[in-house]
Amino acid sequence: MIVTEKAGSPQARSVLQQCLYAMLQVKRADDQSEPEWVEIDRGMMVYICFSNALQRTLSPKWVDTLLNLKLCEADSGKYVSVLDLPGSVLIVPQATLGGKAKGKVMQYHHNIGKEEGLQLYSNFVSFFEKELALSSKSSETATIIKHGTYGNRQVLKLDTNGPYTHLMEF
Amino acid sequence: MIVTEKAGSPQARSVLQQCLYAMLQVKRADDQSEPEWVEIDRGMMVYICFSNALQRTLSPKWVDTLLNLKLCEADSGKYVSVLDLPGSVLIVPQATLGGKAKGKVMQYHHNIGKEEGLQLYSNFVSFFEKELALSSKSSETATIIKHGTYGNRQVLKLDTNGPYTHLMEF
Repeated sequence: MIVTEKAGSPQARSVLQQCLYAMLQVKRADDQSEPEWVEIDRGMMVYICFSNALQRTLSPKWVDTLLNLKLCEADSGKYVSVLDLPGSVLIVPQATLGGKAKGKVMQYHHNIGKEEGLQLYSNFVSFFEKELALSSKSSETATIIKHGTYGNRQVLKLDTNGPYTHLMEF
Repeated sequence: MIVTEKAGSPQARSVLQQCLYAMLQVKRADDQSEPEWVEIDRGMMVYICFSNALQRTLSPKWVDTLLNLKLCEADSGKYVSVLDLPGSVLIVPQATLGGKAKGKVMQYHHNIGKEEGLQLYSNFVSFFEKELALSSKSSETATIIKHGTYGNRQVLKLDTNGPYTHLMEF
């Protein structure tokens, strides 16, 4: 699934990191209220960016891949999927992943537009929730899906026992 | 510098994240001693993986690029380089970045061997230190370079005001 093997640009780029705990701000503080956060314990961060090569189609297979790839270190030291860990998932919209350097400046010309991006991100999160609901594994375990707010600043605190950072392009 | 524009595989893959604070374990606890950590305040995480396409040459230009790209959000809201921020750099060896999915399992066949990888990682860190020593900017500021131990588990805690995750391949 690495982009070097594909003719065109990737349709989506994700970076995956393992965590013991993560908290992500989903609403900034304002005059009326404190900031709001979501949090997960042990599990996987999914930073996701959609490209304008995507053209409004989103494959549920991508989510299936991310949930079932053996990326997570179990207590035994073996690598298992986040479903088998069992671990939770925190999805973070991350448009910067589509950046391309031009001289000293990053450009994001290949990113999808904001409105389409919001819709795709929403679909992406829904696919995770549906896959999880369908998974027989998840019913036995404590896997949950949390996610950030598209377009927001992703204020994030992360605690890992090794991030085991992976790149996965679709 | 994105791999889609290149004929072959990238020689090195880096993921960059911004932080307000990060601490990384560089020595595990044992019977005699507590674990040892390095830490940085505001600055940039550089997760780095070398490919076997690299064949023992490491370009100082890569380090120059990473130090001078405008990836960091300044107090003004403008994007500036980590040198201009001024910020510190935490370099994390991250062999998992070279992973490629085969079915549900990640494979790392394109990663460089351990001994060569250790040497390249050491050179990579040295280039950062040299570039920093040569930079007129760094002498005015508090930029420091910290780094993890190659081959170790990278136990990491990260606090961000938005990770602004970027992929940079060379």
